[in-house]
Amino acid sequence: MLTTAYRPEIAQVGAITLGTPNLEKSLVFFRDLLGMEVTYQTEDVAYLRAYMELVHHSLILRRSSEAIVDTYSFRVKRPEDVELFNQVLQDKEVETLELPAGHEVGRGTAIRFIWPHAGHPIELYYDIDKPQAPEELRSKLPSNSSKRRGLGVRRIDHFNVQAKPGDMNAAEAWIRETLGFKRREFINIPEMKTIVASWMSVTPQVHDLALVANPFEKAAQLHHVAFNLENHSDLLVAADVLKDHDVQFDIGPGKHGIGQALYLYVRDPGSGHRVELYAGGYWILDPDFEAIEWTPATVKDGLTWFGDPLEMGTDNSMAHTTNSAGLRTANQLIG
Amino acid sequence: MLTTAYRPEIAQVGAITLGTPNLEKSLVFFRDLLGMEVTYQTEDVAYLRAYMELVHHSLILRRSSEAIVDTYSFRVKRPEDVELFNQVLQDKEVETLELPAGHEVGRGTAIRFIWPHAGHPIELYYDIDKPQAPEELRSKLPSNSSKRRGLGVRRIDHFNVQAKPGDMNAAEAWIRETLGFKRREFINIPEMKTIVASWMSVTPQVHDLALVANPFEKAAQLHHVAFNLENHSDLLVAADVLKDHDVQFDIGPGKHGIGQALYLYVRDPGSGHRVELYAGGYWILDPDFEAIEWTPATVKDGLTWFGDPLEMGTDNSMAHTTNSAGLRTANQLIG
Amino acid sequence: MLTTAYRPEIAQVGAITLGTPNLEKSLVFFRDLLGMEVTYQTEDVAYLRAYMELVHHSLILRRSSEAIVDTYSFRVKRPEDVELFNQVLQDKEVETLELPAGHEVGRGTAIRFIWPHAGHPIELYYDIDKPQAPEELRSKLPSNSSKRRGLGVRRIDHFNVQAKPGDMNAAEAWIRETLGFKRREFINIPEMKTIVASWMSVTPQVHDLALVANPFEKAAQLHHVAFNLENHSDLLVAADVLKDHDVQFDIGPGKHGIGQALYLYVRDPGSGHRVELYAGGYWILDPDFEAIEWTPATVKDGLTWFGDPLEMGTDNSMAHTTNSAGLRTANQLIG
Amino acid sequence: MLTTAYRPEIAQVGAITLGTPNLEKSLVFFRDLLGMEVTYQTEDVAYLRAYMELVHHSLILRRSSEAIVDTYSFRVKRPEDVELFNQVLQDKEVETLELPAGHEVGRGTAIRFIWPHAGHPIELYYDIDKPQAPEELRSKLPSNSSKRRGLGVRRIDHFNVQAKPGDMNAAEAWIRETLGFKRREFINIPEMKTIVASWMSVTPQVHDLALVANPFEKAAQLHHVAFNLENHSDLLVAADVLKDHDVQFDIGPGKHGIGQALYLYVRDPGSGHRVELYAGGYWILDPDFEAIEWTPATVKDGLTWFGDPLEMGTDNSMAHTTNSAGLRTANQLIG
Repeated sequence: MLTTAYRPEIAQVGAITLGTPNLEKSLVFFRDLLGMEVTYQTEDVAYLRAYMELVHHSLILRRSSEAIVDTYSFRVKRPEDVELFNQVLQDKEVETLELPAGHEVGRGTAIRFIWPHAGHPIELYYDIDKPQAPEELRSKLPSNSSKRRGLGVRRIDHFNVQAKPGDMNAAEAWIRETLGFKRREFINIPEMKTIVASWMSVTPQVHDLALVANPFEKAAQLHHVAFNLENHSDLLVAADVLKDHDVQFDIGPGKHGIGQALYLYVRDPGSGHRVELYAGGYWILDPDFEAIEWTPATVKDGLTWFGDPLEMGTDNSMAHTTNSAGLRTANQLIG
Repeated sequence: MLTTAYRPEIAQVGAITLGTPNLEKSLVFFRDLLGMEVTYQTEDVAYLRAYMELVHHSLILRRSSEAIVDTYSFRVKRPEDVELFNQVLQDKEVETLELPAGHEVGRGTAIRFIWPHAGHPIELYYDIDKPQAPEELRSKLPSNSSKRRGLGVRRIDHFNVQAKPGDMNAAEAWIRETLGFKRREFINIPEMKTIVASWMSVTPQVHDLALVANPFEKAAQLHHVAFNLENHSDLLVAADVLKDHDVQFDIGPGKHGIGQALYLYVRDPGSGHRVELYAGGYWILDPDFEAIEWTPATVKDGLTWFGDPLEMGTDNSMAHTTNSAGLRTANQLIG
Repeated sequence: MLTTAYRPEIAQVGAITLGTPNLEKSLVFFRDLLGMEVTYQTEDVAYLRAYMELVHHSLILRRSSEAIVDTYSFRVKRPEDVELFNQVLQDKEVETLELPAGHEVGRGTAIRFIWPHAGHPIELYYDIDKPQAPEELRSKLPSNSSKRRGLGVRRIDHFNVQAKPGDMNAAEAWIRETLGFKRREFINIPEMKTIVASWMSVTPQVHDLALVANPFEKAAQLHHVAFNLENHSDLLVAADVLKDHDVQFDIGPGKHGIGQALYLYVRDPGSGHRVELYAGGYWILDPDFEAIEWTPATVKDGLTWFGDPLEMGTDNSMAHTTNSAGLRTANQLIG
Repeated sequence: MLTTAYRPEIAQVGAITLGTPNLEKSLVFFRDLLGMEVTYQTEDVAYLRAYMELVHHSLILRRSSEAIVDTYSFRVKRPEDVELFNQVLQDKEVETLELPAGHEVGRGTAIRFIWPHAGHPIELYYDIDKPQAPEELRSKLPSNSSKRRGLGVRRIDHFNVQAKPGDMNAAEAWIRETLGFKRREFINIPEMKTIVASWMSVTPQVHDLALVANPFEKAAQLHHVAFNLENHSDLLVAADVLKDHDVQFDIGPGKHGIGQALYLYVRDPGSGHRVELYAGGYWILDPDFEAIEWTPATVKDGLTWFGDPLEMGTDNSMAHTTNSAGLRTANQLIG
C-alpha cells in the first residue's frame, strides 16, 4: 500500500466575527436587508447564517465600541485536523490558543493563532451544529436552511485582508505553506521583487482568502468580507435596494477580470465594515491550474473588466479598512 | 510524521465522445449555437471546448452511423493517478486498456475500462494540452480560452447515465468506492432495498456524475451530458434561441430541487443525444455534508421545484436514451 | 383648422377590487411577499399599490365571504372623458351608475357599467390621489412611490377575463368599438366563425385586457390579474420564493409566444384568485401593427414558447376561475 | 358630435442614418455583434433592423469620409400626418424638403427639416415596408422579424442629441410644441433660467428623444443613439462580449435614476458614433404624469443611481460627440 504524509486541510471559509458599535443597525443590514437568519442572539451578540448554509453561523456580530474584526475562522476537513494544525503551528513556533467547545455558540473546539507577518486572528475548527430553522422560516428544500429572504445572500464567500507591503511575500508564503491555500491569481511587481495582492483558495473558488498590500503601510487590516449571491441579476437588485436604504456604496456594481465575478462593495451601516456582494465567477477544477499573474501594467482589466471602476491607491473610499484584533482579544468573544 | 494510505483521485469531469450520424449538424449545434470552439478537426471528427475551458477539449464529435457514446472521461488529480487507478482496477479484476498519448488528440496516456454493473466506458487521464485559441478568438482575460460566443456555455458540467434497475446498488457502490465519488443526493426506495438515482461528485458540485435506473431495463444508457451556463438568465436566452432553431426540446426550463440548478434538456439535432443546459445550483463545501435522501413520495419537488415538470417514467420524451459503447469500441476512436 | 370627432380614451389599467375570504392571508401575499404598499386600511378593506405606481392604489382587497371580483377599473385620458364615456354608454343603451368621489378611497368620480355580452363590472375614472409614501418607505427616486421590497412587483399589468364562447365575438367587438381597445393578438376558429381569445390594449403593451372563451360556458369569469416585474430574473426569484411559501402554483414559469413575456400563474392564498406575475414582452409602437392571428393548429407556441406548458381546456388547474360581480354589487364596495 | 382640433402625431422613433468612415467595421459591430439584420445593402450603404422590428430598417450605415448623422427620423401615426406636419412646419416658417418614396429604400414619402435652435435634420414619414426576413433568419414567432442573434438588441430606443446651452430653452420648447413631445424628466438651473437637459417622449418610454446642452457650446451634436435590450442581464452579457472585442467603452454598465434603465455607452468601432445599450426602465402610463425636475444639486442619482458613474462636463470620454448634418446634405442619402 502506498502511503503519503498526512496533511491537515482547510475545507472552507467558516465565519467572521465583527465588532459593531451599533448592533441593531448591523442587524437591519445583515438580517433584514441581506436576508440572513439569526440563529442565536443576546443583548450584545447575534449569530447569523445565510439561507443555503446548513451550519449554525457564518457571521457573528458583537456589540463593541470599536468596529474591529475579532476572528476569521475556517472549517477544517476532518475532526482530527484541528489538533493536527495545532501541532503544525507549534512546530512552526506560532503561539496558539485552544478554545473550548461553546467558545462560539454552536461550535466545537477550535484553535486560535495570529497569522505571522499579517497579524490577523484566525481560528480553525471542525465541529459545528446544524440546527433546523424555526418552522416558519424553514425551507421545503433540504439543501436550504431557510426560505430565501431579503436580497438572498446564500453563503459567506471570502475574506479580503491586508498586510504591510513589506510583509506581503512572507505573509502570503506562510499561509500557503502552512494552511494549504493555493495561489490562483496575483499582482506582482517583479522589479520590486514583491507581490502586492494574492487571491488564494482551498476550494475551487478563485479565492476563499485574498491578501492585499495596505497602501498606508498599516498592519492587520480587513478590506472586506464577501457574501455570495447566485446570479448577476441578484447583485443588480441588491444595488437597487441598498442604494435606496442609505447604505454607503464604495464601488460597484462592476465585474472583476480577476475571478470574473460581479462585485458590489458597500459598508455595513452599523459598523462601517466593508461587505462585498459577490456573484458568479469561474471555478478552478483543473488540477494543473497555473496561477494567473498580473502586473501594474496589466491589472486594470483584472480589477475592473467593466462597470464602476475599482482602483488601488489611497485616495478613494476603497482605501478605508478596519482593524483585525490580535491574540489578546480572544477573551472578548462572548457567546 | 503521520502517514496515510495514498489514494488516486478524480479531479473533474473530462470529456465526452459522441458518435453522431450528422457531424455537420452537430457542429452547428455545439460550435455555432452553444458557442464552443473547435480546437481540432478532420473530415470525420471534431474536438471542442467551451470558452472558459483552458484544456484542449471537453467534447469530441465523431462521425458515426450510430448515435453512441464512445467515452466518458475524467481527469485525475496527479499524473501518477492514471497508473495508480490502473492498478486499483486490476486489483479489483476489472479489465483495463492502456491508451497511448495521442489516442485522443491533445491528450496524454489514459486507461480505459467498463464500469462494472453499469456498462459505461470510462477513461482516466491526467495530461492534456492547453492550447491558446487563434488570435481572432482569443479573450483578453487569461481565465477564458476564447471570447464568449453563441449562448455562452462555459464548461462541461456533468454526465447523467443509467444502469438497469437491478444493477443500481452495485453500480453506484462500485463507482463510489473505486473512483471516490461521493453520494450527494439520491432517490431511494427503502421497501425495495434499492436506490433508483444517485447524484455524485468529486468536486463541490452537487453532481459531476449521476446514475439513474433505466425504466426500460436497458443497460449502459446515456441520459444526458450537461454544459454549464453562468446565470439563470443565460438559460432563458438559450431556450429562446434554441426554440427558434428547430432544436427539439425535451423538458425545461425549470428548476430542480435536487441541486437547485436551472435546467433545459434538448436534443443535439445531429445525433439525438440529449444535452442539458445547466445554470446555478448550490455548492457543497461542508466536509460533513450528509447525502440528501428522496423517496418516490417526496421526490416531486426534487425533480422539479418549478417550471416545465420533469417526470420519471417511460411515456415521455425524457425516457429516450442513447447507448454507451463497450470496451471493444476503443479502436473506433479516431483522432 | 382641421377638426376631428373627439373620442374619450382609456389611458391604462386602473385597479382591481378582489373580494377575499381571508384578508389577512391575502395581505401576506400581496403586501409582504409581492412587496406592495398598503396606502389605506380598515378592518375589512385594504388599498395597495406597487412600488413604481404613483397613484393611490391598483388593488383593493375587500373582506368578503365570496372570492369575487367587484370591479375592474381603467383610468381615462382626460378628466372630461369620464362623463363623455358615460354619454357614449348611454347612447348605446348601457346602464351606468355614477359613483361619487370617495366611493373608492383616494379616487374621484367614476362611472360603473356591466360589459355587454361579457358581464364584467367596469369602472372608469380620471381623478386619483398620488400620496407620498410614509418616510420610512419612501424612495429617493421620484419615479418610485416607495422603495423596492419583497418580490418587487412594480405595477399592475393587465386583466384576463372570460365570456361564454357564444358571446366572444360580440363582447370583444363591443369593447373595441366602445372603449377603443385594439386587438393585438387573437385566437380564431375560422370554421366556427368565432374568436376564442383576444389580447387587446390601449397602451403599447400587447395587452392591457384579454378576453378568453370560458371552457365551461360560464359567464363573467376572471381568469387572472397580472402584476409586472421588470426582469425575467425577477420572475424566477418570485417562483423560488413563492414555491417555498405554500403558494399554489398553476402554471409557470414559462414564456408565452403571444406577447413574448415570461409568466407565472399562482393563487392568492387568501382568496384563490389567480395572479399572474409577468415580465418582459414586446411593445407595439408601430402605428400600422396588424393583429397577429393564431388558430388552434398554430397556437401551441403562442401559449407556451418554452417552459411549463399552458394548455387551454377544462381538465387542468388553469381552468379554475372566479366570478366577476354584476352591477348590483356596486353598493358592496366599502372604502 | 364633439369635435377637436386635429393634430398630426409622432408614433415612435423611426431610424437614424450614420455616416461611417469604415462601413465594414460598423457592420461587424451592428450586424454581427449586436445581432441586427441587414435588409438591404450596396457597396456603400447598409440598411439594418433589430430582431423585434417588423419594419424595413431602424439604422442606415452610409460610407462617408465623415462620421456624421445624416438623419434622425420619426414615424408618424397616420399617413396624412406627413403632409399635415409639412403644413405645420411651413406655417411656422420652417423650410421643409419633400422626399419621394424610395429616398430611403423601403420607405414612402417623407418630409425633412432642420430642428430650429438645435440644428438637427429630422425626417417624418409613415409608409415603410415590412419585409419578411430570408427563410434561414426568419423566426417562428410572428412578432419577431428574425431569430434572436448576437447580443439580442431588439429595437431602436431613442436619440440623445445636443444644442448650444443658450439655445436649450428654445429648442426644447419648439420640439414639444411642434412635434408633440412631452417633457418627462429634465435638469433645470433655475437661477440661470434655463434647462440643461430634457428627456422627452411621445410613447410611454421616459424618452424617445433627449436634448442636452453641449458643454463646448457646439451646435447640432449627436451624443448617442440607443438600442434596446429586454433584460438587465442582456446588458451585462453585452458588456462582457463587447469588452472582449476591442469596442471602446465610454461609461457603464450602470443604472440611471432618470428613467431607471440600465445603460452601457460604447463607440461603434467603424465610425466613433456613440451607441447606448439600454435595458429596463419605467413606463409612463399615467395621463397626469408630472415631469420630474432635477437640479445640479440633486442630479447625481439621476445620472447614475448605481454603477460606473456618468458625469456631465468636458473632461471625460462622454463629452465626445459627433456632428449632425444640416439640410443641404439631404442629397447625400443614397439608397
